[in-house]
Amino acid sequence: MIQATNFQPIISDEVLFKAIEAEKESIGYYTLPFQDTTHIKEYAATVKQQCIAIIGIGGSTLGTYAIYSFLRDATELDKTLHFFESTDPLDIAARLKFIDIENTLFIVISKSGTTIETISIFKYLHSLIPMSAENCLIITESDSKLNDYAVNEGIKTFEIPKNVGGRFSVFSSVGLVPLAIVGVDIDALLASAAEVHDSFFSQGEDYHSLVTKARFLVENKKEYNINVLFSYSTMLEGFNKWYVQLWGESLGKVDTTGMKQGLTPIGLIGPVDQHSFLQLIVEGVRDKTVTFIVIDDFLCSSSIPKMTLRGLESTDNVNGMTFSRLIQMQAHATIEAIKELQDIPYDVITISEVNEANIAKLMYSYELLTSLCAQLMGINAYNQPGVEAGKIILKKSLET
Amino acid sequence: MIQATNFQPIISDEVLFKAIEAEKESIGYYTLPFQDTTHIKEYAATVKQQCIAIIGIGGSTLGTYAIYSFLRDATELDKTLHFFESTDPLDIAARLKFIDIENTLFIVISKSGTTIETISIFKYLHSLIPMSAENCLIITESDSKLNDYAVNEGIKTFEIPKNVGGRFSVFSSVGLVPLAIVGVDIDALLASAAEVHDSFFSQGEDYHSLVTKARFLVENKKEYNINVLFSYSTMLEGFNKWYVQLWGESLGKVDTTGMKQGLTPIGLIGPVDQHSFLQLIVEGVRDKTVTFIVIDDFLCSSSIPKMTLRGLESTDNVNGMTFSRLIQMQAHATIEAIKELQDIPYDVITISEVNEANIAKLMYSYELLTSLCAQLMGINAYNQPGVEAGKIILKKSLET
Repeated sequence: MIQATNFQPIISDEVLFKAIEAEKESIGYYTLPFQDTTHIKEYAATVKQQCIAIIGIGGSTLGTYAIYSFLRDATELDKTLHFFESTDPLDIAARLKFIDIENTLFIVISKSGTTIETISIFKYLHSLIPMSAENCLIITESDSKLNDYAVNEGIKTFEIPKNVGGRFSVFSSVGLVPLAIVGVDIDALLASAAEVHDSFFSQGEDYHSLVTKARFLVENKKEYNINVLFSYSTMLEGFNKWYVQLWGESLGKVDTTGMKQGLTPIGLIGPVDQHSFLQLIVEGVRDKTVTFIVIDDFLCSSSIPKMTLRGLESTDNVNGMTFSRLIQMQAHATIEAIKELQDIPYDVITISEVNEANIAKLMYSYELLTSLCAQLMGINAYNQPGVEAGKIILKKSLET
Repeated sequence: MIQATNFQPIISDEVLFKAIEAEKESIGYYTLPFQDTTHIKEYAATVKQQCIAIIGIGGSTLGTYAIYSFLRDATELDKTLHFFESTDPLDIAARLKFIDIENTLFIVISKSGTTIETISIFKYLHSLIPMSAENCLIITESDSKLNDYAVNEGIKTFEIPKNVGGRFSVFSSVGLVPLAIVGVDIDALLASAAEVHDSFFSQGEDYHSLVTKARFLVENKKEYNINVLFSYSTMLEGFNKWYVQLWGESLGKVDTTGMKQGLTPIGLIGPVDQHSFLQLIVEGVRDKTVTFIVIDDFLCSSSIPKMTLRGLESTDNVNGMTFSRLIQMQAHATIEAIKELQDIPYDVITISEVNEANIAKLMYSYELLTSLCAQLMGINAYNQPGVEAGKIILKKSLET
């Protein structure tokens, strides 16, 4: 009689789980949902300005923008958020038109404290309106040069923990402070992230679905080197951008054996990109996985009027329908078309309604998914050594 | 003595050129630079409204947005352009806040005339403010149902030629009419596109550089299935989006042998995406080509103040520099870092200054490049059969 065992994955679920648990010792983002936010809320309540302008780039802005742009149009926020993140002079000029500079709190966010874009823009704005404890707040590491500056000037600071990287920092002071100021319920954000955390680390439902997804993506990374996120709402454009950074910068790495690894993220917005990128997904090379994000309730009742236009009677089939329902139907028609092809790997994330809990759940889950993929790929998700060479070249050319 | 010929490309330069020349018989975009614009300029001069709102999606808006967003902040335009393109109800509500609905000309653009997003949004806006010859303009094919509607209502129309596809329509009435209204010099756009046309079809410099590029991209498409456009200015964000549609929708096709083809476009903006996607390019799998776009002159003299901040003295190396120069140096430092790696195919497009001629040259060249790649891949660049299945599913579900 022949006896055989089945093939086993190189990294078993048990080893994978232990590796992630071990990361909790050194990687700070896992436990951010459990922090005390009292001091943040107390500070936020004291802010008088109506415009809040963040000066920062990359991980200092993308997570905050994702949450803000998701909630902004669907909920009533108290203040407006603005982002100065590019050294493009025309971009700076254009953004200045949208703020009342005399009624603006400037929040300078830089983990290292010497990010060239951030400090250059800060100096420029400082030359337009003097920065002081009255109109400026600084979020940085406790021992950075920017922190020294804040101490010298008596400017209030919040700390970015050393073990929380920029792209994993949305639930640290980086995201929570500006979001609390504009009126986002940050405790609801954290409570929802904590739920995902607990379900994951008790190996509940979230754990199994994330591990299954991570294994699929990593095991098929040679065939499907592109991961498309097809989000059916312009409110998710910020989330898409955050995802692109999280995925690209975390997973584009040299692994422990010296091999270059990487999965390429692409963010699409439906239905607009049905008229742009969809053709490539449907008839192009099978090198993509697709994750659809569909919103069940936009909290918005506006609808297509029951209106017949002479000549355009054939379009009356959507008369009376809410736009919310139309966009859902468009999403599901696209999903159905992809499903019928049978050779494009896809999954669907449904967001029940637009609120703090759901965006936090989505983002914390994606952080965990990223950590799982990195473990399976044998890479470090939390550094970014590849961007140093350009910085060194820039520094040298500035010296000459 | 042994005699040998060298390997020859499957499609010789001669055959390729003849194929493109033959396309001019049936594909309309090639000769758009030579049209008479008198009637467009005459109409544009009569428009009284200050806000111009385009209702359209995909090819009806992306090219116009690319040119408008490139020129908007650097030049003095007379009016503002707004885009209603998504059925997302919160997006519609947000965009309404930016226009003065009583002082807005609505331009409905749909080639087929029955695009569901466009007509639904049109009806909705029509319910907010009645549309008439006074505040509405329609751009569509001459025999579409939308054209019937316009004729019935006495609304002025401009025609989209049948043989000009949406993503190749920027130099037709689709782009020229709204751009002329807001004050863009459309003759300068066309003159520059005509120059590229003439150089290309006389097999001059533009021809040889585009053919070389197209051959490289197509011959290496299996290894490098992703084409990144890394544009160093937020003004090029619209161009990036237009490129993504042009490239994805034109080249994602089944070829004459039944094989699925496709090159995947990605648009990045520098320096912001140095803090996001660059790590993946540098250390990730070698599956990408990169085209950098660098602007020489932003026509903007704002600079980093000569300001020393206590604690931040180490950042004084950029003091006194214009932002325009800083962003250029950032671009060139990144290019240099990529060059040093020696295993990432890249090229650099330099835009001398921000004006009509340069954006038109860039866009017309990319249209030609797309046509060349499609010929080399054995596909039809000008249709989009892959998006029909979803439309049919949506139509069926609307009937039930």
